[in-house]
Amino acid sequence: MEVSKTAEKIKKMEIRGAGDIARATARALRDTAKKSDATNLEELKKDIDEASETLLSSRPTAVSLPNSIRLITKNLKQYQTLNEGRNDVIERANRFIERSKKSLETLGRIGSKRIRDGDTILTHCNSEAALSIIKTADKTKNIKVIATESRPRLQGKITARELAENNIPVTLIVDSAVRSAMKNVDIVVVGADAIGVNGAVANKIGTSQIALAANEARVTFMVAAETYKFSPKTAVGEPIKIEERSEKEVWEKCPNNICISNPAFDFTPPEYIDLICTEIGMISPHMSYSILKEEFDWTIEELKNE
Amino acid sequence: MEVSKTAEKIKKMEIRGAGDIARATARALRDTAKKSDATNLEELKKDIDEASETLLSSRPTAVSLPNSIRLITKNLKQYQTLNEGRNDVIERANRFIERSKKSLETLGRIGSKRIRDGDTILTHCNSEAALSIIKTADKTKNIKVIATESRPRLQGKITARELAENNIPVTLIVDSAVRSAMKNVDIVVVGADAIGVNGAVANKIGTSQIALAANEARVTFMVAAETYKFSPKTAVGEPIKIEERSEKEVWEKCPNNICISNPAFDFTPPEYIDLICTEIGMISPHMSYSILKEEFDWTIEELKNE
Amino acid sequence: MEVSKTAEKIKKMEIRGAGDIARATARALRDTAKKSDATNLEELKKDIDEASETLLSSRPTAVSLPNSIRLITKNLKQYQTLNEGRNDVIERANRFIERSKKSLETLGRIGSKRIRDGDTILTHCNSEAALSIIKTADKTKNIKVIATESRPRLQGKITARELAENNIPVTLIVDSAVRSAMKNVDIVVVGADAIGVNGAVANKIGTSQIALAANEARVTFMVAAETYKFSPKTAVGEPIKIEERSEKEVWEKCPNNICISNPAFDFTPPEYIDLICTEIGMISPHMSYSILKEEFDWTIEELKNE
Amino acid sequence: MEVSKTAEKIKKMEIRGAGDIARATARALRDTAKKSDATNLEELKKDIDEASETLLSSRPTAVSLPNSIRLITKNLKQYQTLNEGRNDVIERANRFIERSKKSLETLGRIGSKRIRDGDTILTHCNSEAALSIIKTADKTKNIKVIATESRPRLQGKITARELAENNIPVTLIVDSAVRSAMKNVDIVVVGADAIGVNGAVANKIGTSQIALAANEARVTFMVAAETYKFSPKTAVGEPIKIEERSEKEVWEKCPNNICISNPAFDFTPPEYIDLICTEIGMISPHMSYSILKEEFDWTIEELKNE
Amino acid sequence: MEVSKTAEKIKKMEIRGAGDIARATARALRDTAKKSDATNLEELKKDIDEASETLLSSRPTAVSLPNSIRLITKNLKQYQTLNEGRNDVIERANRFIERSKKSLETLGRIGSKRIRDGDTILTHCNSEAALSIIKTADKTKNIKVIATESRPRLQGKITARELAENNIPVTLIVDSAVRSAMKNVDIVVVGADAIGVNGAVANKIGTSQIALAANEARVTFMVAAETYKFSPKTAVGEPIKIEERSEKEVWEKCPNNICISNPAFDFTPPEYIDLICTEIGMISPHMSYSILKEEFDWTIEELKNE
Amino acid sequence: MEVSKTAEKIKKMEIRGAGDIARATARALRDTAKKSDATNLEELKKDIDEASETLLSSRPTAVSLPNSIRLITKNLKQYQTLNEGRNDVIERANRFIERSKKSLETLGRIGSKRIRDGDTILTHCNSEAALSIIKTADKTKNIKVIATESRPRLQGKITARELAENNIPVTLIVDSAVRSAMKNVDIVVVGADAIGVNGAVANKIGTSQIALAANEARVTFMVAAETYKFSPKTAVGEPIKIEERSEKEVWEKCPNNICISNPAFDFTPPEYIDLICTEIGMISPHMSYSILKEEFDWTIEELKNE
Repeated sequence: MEVSKTAEKIKKMEIRGAGDIARATARALRDTAKKSDATNLEELKKDIDEASETLLSSRPTAVSLPNSIRLITKNLKQYQTLNEGRNDVIERANRFIERSKKSLETLGRIGSKRIRDGDTILTHCNSEAALSIIKTADKTKNIKVIATESRPRLQGKITARELAENNIPVTLIVDSAVRSAMKNVDIVVVGADAIGVNGAVANKIGTSQIALAANEARVTFMVAAETYKFSPKTAVGEPIKIEERSEKEVWEKCPNNICISNPAFDFTPPEYIDLICTEIGMISPHMSYSILKEEFDWTIEELKNE
Repeated sequence: MEVSKTAEKIKKMEIRGAGDIARATARALRDTAKKSDATNLEELKKDIDEASETLLSSRPTAVSLPNSIRLITKNLKQYQTLNEGRNDVIERANRFIERSKKSLETLGRIGSKRIRDGDTILTHCNSEAALSIIKTADKTKNIKVIATESRPRLQGKITARELAENNIPVTLIVDSAVRSAMKNVDIVVVGADAIGVNGAVANKIGTSQIALAANEARVTFMVAAETYKFSPKTAVGEPIKIEERSEKEVWEKCPNNICISNPAFDFTPPEYIDLICTEIGMISPHMSYSILKEEFDWTIEELKNE
Repeated sequence: MEVSKTAEKIKKMEIRGAGDIARATARALRDTAKKSDATNLEELKKDIDEASETLLSSRPTAVSLPNSIRLITKNLKQYQTLNEGRNDVIERANRFIERSKKSLETLGRIGSKRIRDGDTILTHCNSEAALSIIKTADKTKNIKVIATESRPRLQGKITARELAENNIPVTLIVDSAVRSAMKNVDIVVVGADAIGVNGAVANKIGTSQIALAANEARVTFMVAAETYKFSPKTAVGEPIKIEERSEKEVWEKCPNNICISNPAFDFTPPEYIDLICTEIGMISPHMSYSILKEEFDWTIEELKNE
Repeated sequence: MEVSKTAEKIKKMEIRGAGDIARATARALRDTAKKSDATNLEELKKDIDEASETLLSSRPTAVSLPNSIRLITKNLKQYQTLNEGRNDVIERANRFIERSKKSLETLGRIGSKRIRDGDTILTHCNSEAALSIIKTADKTKNIKVIATESRPRLQGKITARELAENNIPVTLIVDSAVRSAMKNVDIVVVGADAIGVNGAVANKIGTSQIALAANEARVTFMVAAETYKFSPKTAVGEPIKIEERSEKEVWEKCPNNICISNPAFDFTPPEYIDLICTEIGMISPHMSYSILKEEFDWTIEELKNE
Repeated sequence: MEVSKTAEKIKKMEIRGAGDIARATARALRDTAKKSDATNLEELKKDIDEASETLLSSRPTAVSLPNSIRLITKNLKQYQTLNEGRNDVIERANRFIERSKKSLETLGRIGSKRIRDGDTILTHCNSEAALSIIKTADKTKNIKVIATESRPRLQGKITARELAENNIPVTLIVDSAVRSAMKNVDIVVVGADAIGVNGAVANKIGTSQIALAANEARVTFMVAAETYKFSPKTAVGEPIKIEERSEKEVWEKCPNNICISNPAFDFTPPEYIDLICTEIGMISPHMSYSILKEEFDWTIEELKNE
Repeated sequence: MEVSKTAEKIKKMEIRGAGDIARATARALRDTAKKSDATNLEELKKDIDEASETLLSSRPTAVSLPNSIRLITKNLKQYQTLNEGRNDVIERANRFIERSKKSLETLGRIGSKRIRDGDTILTHCNSEAALSIIKTADKTKNIKVIATESRPRLQGKITARELAENNIPVTLIVDSAVRSAMKNVDIVVVGADAIGVNGAVANKIGTSQIALAANEARVTFMVAAETYKFSPKTAVGEPIKIEERSEKEVWEKCPNNICISNPAFDFTPPEYIDLICTEIGMISPHMSYSILKEEFDWTIEELKNE
């Protein structure tokens, strides 16, 4: 698929979810490298840079996208020949895709151990990572799931269908019913679009009030996230941008004299998060800085100049 | 309108809102008294009782309905003649309707004094009492309103249209965006379907998580409610019942293997409510028992036998 | 039974529980009035006063004791003749005893309505009023009870036996296991030894940390108390005294170089109490001042002089 | 003293403290009545109204001022003759002054019972009512006081001197040191300038953050206030106005390009107040509506028209 | 002592406390290695494995037991000869025992610096590590200790005796009196049986409600724990198991129709823990993941396969 | 400047602020090394040690002072010759000074990214690091600042002047007005004098109640601090000492019978701190142990012996 098509699909949310976005980005970069007409390394770099720019502009919040680009193109500048560069991008893209899938499975196994037999799990939106935990838990335990609608795009219905197809008992509720339902919930499991250096989690709008309600009732709140969801730039102060999406998503034919505000994400502060389940283990959200240092080879200088 | 039609419309939410329900109930009882073929007082009582039963079964949560019946029929048993009884019911019904409208205006004036020039007000669902406060405030102050969609019935759109027609700037948000929007809110104003003896408020599903988010950010949370929203039965322990409505409201064509839970209301605990604005003044929610004693002439014995 | 014996039994906790203490006090005063050798009203008053003093000194915390005396002897000073006085004390004592029993039954019926089918109730110590609610609820609902040991006197074992005899499923836990058990609790129901003007409740040591744990987990915390548990003197600032009992209760043969602190009661602040269930209805703890004004005909002046 | 002089002294804070202001107002009205050249009742009313206007404009926050006027002039309209009116104003003014002083002593006795031997009391600013409690407690108990400076007017120094003259050990701290000192405090006792219908207390700037710090450390927070500090107008929604005083009080020679904000009072929410000690007893702040109904004979209609 | 005897004593709590259990385990493994009849390395491994199994089954919660085994047997698989293996196990066991004792002394010195002259320390159960801090502090400071009974096994009495023998003033209270005593406590010091990757601490039942009460009153809550109390398996999601002990411990002759629940431990969440004092320094509970990485050379893969 | 003069100026607060103190200390050590009459390395060490002692005694709380000495003199013991030692001290002192200034600029750039256009920032006292963030933010964004007076030394006036000179809109408030002003604040930015191993921050008296008020209103609380503000000794339990300064600072002519308590600093617990902005990036306060390990090459043994 062409880069511009990929970017378009990400923008329109035909490709959705931080993992799918990251892998689609990797594929787009790989294909760019493969199909590039570049006759030298410089031209290849230009092609890759252009592709990166196009992809980066598609959605501002999901950090998996720039992290995917960062990890795939990081060594490009060191190469001497076109072939070396091309092969490195292709190889890194393939490795990223594979690792991404492997991570999902690994964190699914790790997170599932925190689910107890008989638990009722509340989830929000349609998170690949959260569902990996839920499905793995279902293999050995009796569980029930409460899924929120997740207005305005109603991804909760996709989650509900996916769980029902796996014969996991699921109840759908409107987003407003979360606090009311919380008294029957044992654990909340949600995904993440981006995680900041202080452990704050950007995720689908509504996540932070679910976390607030869980915290009020002392229900465990677990975030499922591959390590490429952690945002290196937040370590140098860069705030995570919250995408404001079209008002048509909320009200197709909204009268002119009514405004719509449609932020796609919100921030959950670290004090409401009990655990972040990653492919390298369970961590406290307060460990984010350590994860960033272990997983990404950035320096303060590099990031400040970005 | 016939009693059965009124009950049907209440059930289907064509007649919505605690105030409208109470006044429709009053009108139905008045018309029953007017048109009754009763030839003696006993027969009239039977007609009124039947009408009351039919009306009471329409929606379980809104206490304005039984309170309206209670206030209109309370003296019926004391009369000697058919005419006395008939006239008393008609007169009390008319007085209830008038007082109900007057109360709305009075509490609107009282509550509006707490709105300051430049305030942003968040409201939920479509509450006559809350809107009375907002519209009165708008006459003398610059205000802005944030209205929630209020899934599943989307009464927030009705609120938004009503405010826009009154040239009050209004922004609609999905229910999940409440905590995210809260940092720009100065005061929350919502209605009530029923208020318990300890000051807990039953209102449209989602109200309690708005109150939780307001409390977290120290934003004032004000409930607008006529005194007939206070539930005498809660004084003797009777819990307020939460209506569970049809799953079709949430998902028209929900697959069979997915459940829907659709509670119409939730409870906001008194510790999250700063003020209840009634037609007899502002009160702390903890004063509910006093209001019940002042406004309703019940005894413990009477209520226990209900 | 003689006054001094009654006082002794109260001190040794052979007569235990605020209700039993109040009724035993009433009986002792009644018998004093009956058997008094007084030849005139003055002598009767002296006998009653001495009896009151003896009884009052037995246990300092339970307010039911002075309230019982207050209600029974209040009009004694107005009488002219010995007979009038004697009869008034006897009659008031009998009425107090009857009302006390009736109150237990009434509040049991009121409180039981807050218990839902399937609820797990946690209770502490051995409260007549709390058990009245639990047993009444059990008549129509499936319930389970968790009872705490209630060291040092282990009254929780009495509670457990009493429930088991009534075929109510009961689980005993050590006092330290409360927070751990709280996740399976739907409602806490405890008694009260004294309730202050601001709604603070003095009850068996440990009650306040149960309330704290319930509040942390948003579990409803209900106090069951007849109105004679409210302390009029707190309205004029008099603090409720906490009885410090013998160290032998805690450690029979405690080595000399180890101290024991054995307070019999603690205070639960009103913000941790959702409801107080009395025989005149459910109330918010913040309504205590109103209850004191309704139920006791004291004046500020009278109390200040005590 | 002339009305205009009294008003001027109140404005400049030569007459300070809600009690002194109220009594000075009473004296000014009494003297106006005494010295009025009025030849008929109408002229007297005009004189009294003018005096009231002048006094009311002096300081906006202290409710003792309008309450004093309200109580002294309430019956003026009912009289027929000049003499009746004149005498009624004089008599009511004298009674108000006497009751005000008596109230201070009464609430001092009531509040002092909550102070225990050995307690360290923190107080703020220079409150007559709080000092009445502290001095009464000192008569029978060993106490220590921590007094805050209370910038910008440093009334804390007056408090410290007053306590030292009474041989009560006192330590002065800067306002910033409150949270740091709180770990050694047993009880906070402060005054009030106005109390709202929901129990919120307007008092010297800084009070609310002392209450916040006391609440954080579970230290009892007691407000000392005569009942004429409760604001009837808040029952119909009227917010208490916060006086913004001259920037000269904060920085005598403030450079032009620096702004000063100098609010004289702030609001302490009821959830941070354990007790309000009045001359009619201890109450929960949530009982404010009841106090307003008992102590002031206003109606909703009357207040709405003000 | 034979392995089976050691396991038996651990089960019966004749050997108690995470440190003693770990050292007894080390001794048992060492003796197994010493006395093994194995004629080759394979047989030795089998003996060691069997011994490990027996020991592991004795108590499920204390992580010091598997950590001790893990550290002692970790290199066994790499050896070629019986002697090498035998010697390595013996040497590692001895080193573990020595380090364990050294750690206690080191953390005692570190933790004691947080105790101030005049402090009252509350402790729970009978923790070697907590007592190391308390006794070290007592050498240079005036301190007082409040010890809880710690039902059902009453280890608090052992603590009280041990302190009294060291001439440290100690007061014993029932477990229910913790919140009541907290107002006189300066710091809480307790031990740990296991610490999870997110900083949650498993310790003697009741610890979490002490932490809750300390948090409510802003009293510092310090956990004393050698690093071998941190549980590596929690890093891959494995929850710490809570041992349910015999009901006989609670009620020797419990009637048949009464259940007993007797969990030996509970979890204290990291937000209630101010400091964990280890032999490698003071840390925030949120640093647990870092400690696990530094102190144990596990990999995600290894742990997942366990 | 001579060492004793530097120490004197630090004591008198002519040299103020952790950064200035650290750099002045570096200069004093450098000059000591330069001007030393030492004829061999031993004599130099003695001179440096004496200088260090003198400087260390000047102010007890600011950790930048011992950290500066630690970093400058750390290798002195390894050298063989006088020249080597002298040069090393000089070079390290110069490097420290340069790095200190560079750090300020770097953290200013990092922290400024968290300030949004239109933000109102509250700051306390006169922190170089906080001002670096504010001034950097002002270059690209419209901001407003609220500065507290910071009694008793009124450093807030210095801050206000400095901001006004930079044309940054600034409003000065008394310290008591913080909670009242908080509703208009978007972010709090303050400095630090010392940061403990658990993330607690020692800073100018009043900081902790600002943090408490920010936390209550969910306003972001950011601490600006170079890494040399972290205190290595806290890792081994050493508490940070709080300097008690002269009572003359608070009340020049305080009467004899009034005490003054004048602590210069207080502790802000980590749960009230959202971010610490350092020159090596943003971190959670809970990461302090990691920062200490990265930035200072201490061992547990070394520190315990100090």
